[in-house]
Amino acid sequence: MNFKLTIQYDGTDFHGWQRQGELRTVQGELTRALTLIDGLEVIVHGSGRTDAGVHAQGQVASVRVERNITPEKLRAAINGNVAKDLRIMQAQIASDDFHARHSALEKTYLYRVVNGPVMSPFWLRYAHHEARQLDLEGMTSCAAVFLGTHDWTAFSAAQSDTEGRTRTINHLEVSGRTDERSGEPMVEIKASADGFLRYMVRSIAGTLLAVGRGEIDEQHIKRAIEQGDRSLAGATAPAYGLTLLSVRYE
Amino acid sequence: MNFKLTIQYDGTDFHGWQRQGELRTVQGELTRALTLIDGLEVIVHGSGRTDAGVHAQGQVASVRVERNITPEKLRAAINGNVAKDLRIMQAQIASDDFHARHSALEKTYLYRVVNGPVMSPFWLRYAHHEARQLDLEGMTSCAAVFLGTHDWTAFSAAQSDTEGRTRTINHLEVSGRTDERSGEPMVEIKASADGFLRYMVRSIAGTLLAVGRGEIDEQHIKRAIEQGDRSLAGATAPAYGLTLLSVRYE
Repeated sequence: MNFKLTIQYDGTDFHGWQRQGELRTVQGELTRALTLIDGLEVIVHGSGRTDAGVHAQGQVASVRVERNITPEKLRAAINGNVAKDLRIMQAQIASDDFHARHSALEKTYLYRVVNGPVMSPFWLRYAHHEARQLDLEGMTSCAAVFLGTHDWTAFSAAQSDTEGRTRTINHLEVSGRTDERSGEPMVEIKASADGFLRYMVRSIAGTLLAVGRGEIDEQHIKRAIEQGDRSLAGATAPAYGLTLLSVRYE
Repeated sequence: MNFKLTIQYDGTDFHGWQRQGELRTVQGELTRALTLIDGLEVIVHGSGRTDAGVHAQGQVASVRVERNITPEKLRAAINGNVAKDLRIMQAQIASDDFHARHSALEKTYLYRVVNGPVMSPFWLRYAHHEARQLDLEGMTSCAAVFLGTHDWTAFSAAQSDTEGRTRTINHLEVSGRTDERSGEPMVEIKASADGFLRYMVRSIAGTLLAVGRGEIDEQHIKRAIEQGDRSLAGATAPAYGLTLLSVRYE
């Protein structure tokens, strides 16, 4: 039976999604738990990798399980065999051809920034701290420049992807609010695309933060995209500020 | 100069507020940092203790500092000398007679419960997990029974307070919502009083949770209050679900 798993994890104590020998990774933990449950080696396909320290609120994986088991029991069995910073929120029976990566239509990421003088302890693991007040209007107007289909060479890791570097960004939104939990001013950058290259969201977030500090302008970003020059983009924002919110399927 | 400090801490790695020898406590850390800054032993008066594991979003302390220093510099100096799970959010010059405990008029606490089948990793440190669906209507109607001035012997630690056990609860509110951060159903219990005895908020929260599970009713609670019988109250809810939100002054 083919299952779709919707997964949350606090990325702090993981070396990212992808299995890497003895290192603690999300894919590694799920593979271990599922292989234990099924008695056979189970292959865990994620919608895509997340880097070390990146969190997920709605990561999706597909897994083929030989044992006859209901989705509820599969969820409970996995959750009973992994630590509490990793949870299967939902398990569903999927059609035979469902594949978490190949079937994905769109991914949405959120980058969180605490934008006040003092960093709240409650956001330490989940948001980046920027003490200088960010220019939200400037960030919002520059966000529009990123929309559409482009080659994202300037905004990805040098050794990035074998499948080409063209992706389509459907939404990129910058918003400011007071976080009710900590009472702190927060700036959130939300990005949706048909796919992201490695470091792409964090590189766009870092560039928008540089805009917010008045270091980079719209022309600068346009040039970076057109020329594919990594040195024109802003610094890659730290991993712990980033959360994979959701993956969209048919 | 007398200062009012507004403080946040993630209680997970503290043995509570109150100084206790070599144990890591909030008062202990602040005393150490302030004594280092001032060169003389500084006494840190908190609005009240919080137990081990309890968090604070708006704890208040008053401190008398001999050195001539601005509030901004005092805040930065303390934050530079303590770990990041403890932050001075604000330092203000206070009148000479301001005392964080004696001057406090009202305290507000929040008890958070994730009320869904699976506990989100993002709430692990800050909320209690209750998988069974809670009866919010029943909890709300029972919350009204707690309002007003009573002797809270049934809802406090056996060896509790020397200053009498009568306190006035001004507000007690139960609300349900979907948490936007984790997508999980949350139940929140918010309580304001002129003061709380030791374990009082957690004991009231535990009793309301028992109401939500259908184990205790209104008459039961009334009897517990009237008879001062600890065995009639619900179990004390775990510390990590509790946050001191704010302390009100003139």
